[in-house]
This record gives sequence, structure tokens and C-alpha cells, in this order.
Amino acid sequence: MKHTIGVLVENSSGVLARVSGLFSARGFNIDSLAVGETEDPSVSRMTIVAHGDDRVVDQIMKQLNKLIDVVRVVNLTQEDLIDRELLLVKVLAPASTRSEVMQIVNTFRAKIVDVNSKTLAIEVTGGESKIDAMLELLRPYGILEVVRTGLVAMSRKFELNTGQKNPVLPKSEAAPKVQKKAVSKKAKVKV
Amino acid sequence: MKHTIGVLVENSSGVLARVSGLFSARGFNIDSLAVGETEDPSVSRMTIVAHGDDRVVDQIMKQLNKLIDVVRVVNLTQEDLIDRELLLVKVLAPASTRSEVMQIVNTFRAKIVDVNSKTLAIEVTGGESKIDAMLELLRPYGILEVVRTGLVAMSRKFELNTGQKNPVLPKSEAAPKVQKKAVSKKAKVKV
Repeated sequence: MKHTIGVLVENSSGVLARVSGLFSARGFNIDSLAVGETEDPSVSRMTIVAHGDDRVVDQIMKQLNKLIDVVRVVNLTQEDLIDRELLLVKVLAPASTRSEVMQIVNTFRAKIVDVNSKTLAIEVTGGESKIDAMLELLRPYGILEVVRTGLVAMSRKFELNTGQKNPVLPKSEAAPKVQKKAVSKKAKVKV
Repeated sequence: MKHTIGVLVENSSGVLARVSGLFSARGFNIDSLAVGETEDPSVSRMTIVAHGDDRVVDQIMKQLNKLIDVVRVVNLTQEDLIDRELLLVKVLAPASTRSEVMQIVNTFRAKIVDVNSKTLAIEVTGGESKIDAMLELLRPYGILEVVRTGLVAMSRKFELNTGQKNPVLPKSEAAPKVQKKAVSKKAKVKV
């Protein structure tokens, strides 16, 4: 099963190696990972997409919580998500096929970000399936280069950074189960 | 100095831990990292942004090349780059301030991706400075949640996946120096 995991971490050297090490130690391949700063420059947020057994994911999340750099972990898989990915793709588009390529660009509400006499560079955002569909359509024209950010996701109803459900929602809507973070800073670092 | 590094890797379990481990072993903090599949599902591409000494980055790149999962590494820092990042931000926007927030959204050509009676979720793409500027403007309204993909980048003139400069460029334009990949598959894995 595909899991989307949000992790808030302190911005310290090596935290990425420790987090990704937990996955690889269990032979879990990470499909995509994106990490960037949050509104607090001392805290970064990762979005990890990985395939695997629910039980193993639960174990990994518990171990993530034991890392002292990890502020909060939540499995967003069951949430009502806003998830997006950014794709940059460079595609062959000489005069003979340029208008066809540009039709695809328009259909997907993508943007042309660079152009020369024989190629176009295109930027598009969307869910994984939209990005895949666009690449599939562009493939016959000759894809020169692809770079994807990996998925980032946030719940519509729940704030990961505060651990609170959205303050505007009726109280009856429960926030998802967040793995409790050990209080002691002495919690043993596993990796 | 800020470095933008593109890394093509084979899609094997643990490669992310090994790559990020090389940075942390030298106390190098990764500012952002984005990894996603390329047009070849067996190969992923990472874009790593890190601050540090040029000499240490050169050493890290040489060591990355020694990892058997690493197909190619290039320092894109000096390149003419197309670089983009995706931001999702949830911001308080009750009726009293909603029109002001929407003006900011329009100015930055951002998109509203979710809405309820008191908040807006916004998607925007751009370079780092554009994203930072937008967050700065939204801050007074009350940011509830931020998730960024980290930068992805490709050269306008050079293809990382083939190691070739863009086929349509005049031959005089030299491709950037790519760290030669050791031929032997026995190259010692450092981490």
C-alpha cells in the first residue's frame, strides 16, 4: 500500500540521513521525498511517499518518533489531502511539432519556462496521475530531461505543524492519530 | 556558498540514506532535497541545495561518484539554470481579510487549491526568492501550515540524464565538467 508521511524535523545536520536510514534499514524503498523549510527556519518539513506493509510503516513511524530531531510524524494516507508535485521537463519541439506540444501544454495548464529553436522546457504542477499523464503524452515527441520534486501534501482538516485540527472545523471532527512524541530528550537515537 | 547539485541514482533501497549520509558525515547541512522518478522508472533524480565550502563540495561530489547506485553527479551552481520550487500554504482568510489575501494570490499568479469559511490553501511555484517573498506577505494574515518541495533545477544548455550538452546548441558551447563516473562496479561504497 502507498503511504504518504509528513515529518516535521529540526533543521540539524544529518537528520535527513537518519530519517532515510530508518526506511532503508527495513528495505523500504522511498518513492519520493521532498524536504524544505517551514515558516520557522529552525524546522523543516518532509513529505515521504513509500510503498509497503501497513505494519512496517507503523514501526517506522514509531522509530522516527524516537529520533531527537523529529518534532512530529503523521501518516497522511487516510487524510483528505491536498497533494501536489512539480515537474520540469525538456522536450524536443522543432517547428514541425511545436504547435502540437503547445496544445498539450495548454491542455494541462502547464507553463513554458524556456524555449530555443528545437526544445521547450515546461513546468507543470498537479497530482501524480496528472504528471504521469502529461509525460506519457509528451514521450513520443522526445523527452530530453525530466526532474520532479516528489509529492508534497497537507491535510485539508489538520495542521501538522501544531498537531491541531484546523481551528475552524466543528469540534466533532477528530484530528488523526499523531504518534506521540517522547518527552525525554534522552530518547535513544536508533540510527 | 550555495550549491545546487543534480544527482542521477538507481532506484534502489537505501540510496537516499547513502547520499544524505555523505553530506552529514562532513557536517554539511542540506538546505533542501527533492527526489522523484525520471522518464526511466529505474532511475531517480535528486536536486540537492546545500551551503558550504567549494572544496568540501568537490570532495562530496567525488565520493558520491564512488557510490555504485549513483549514475551521474553534476554541480549545477555555475549553470544557466531553470530552477523552481512548489509551495503549499494554508493561511487564515476570514471574510474580513479574504480579498486582501486573494490580491496577493493574483499578484504572484498563485492558485487557490482549497477553501473553507476561514482559511485558504494556496499553491505557488517559482524560484526561492519569489516563494520567500510571498510567504513574507502572507505572514501578517496568519500562516497555519507551510510545505515546500525544495528546489528542482535543470540547466538550459545541458542534459544531466545523458551527460550531453543540448543537441541543438552550437558545438562551441562546452558542456560543464561532469565528475567522471568510475567504470568499475567494484568501486568501494563509502557509506
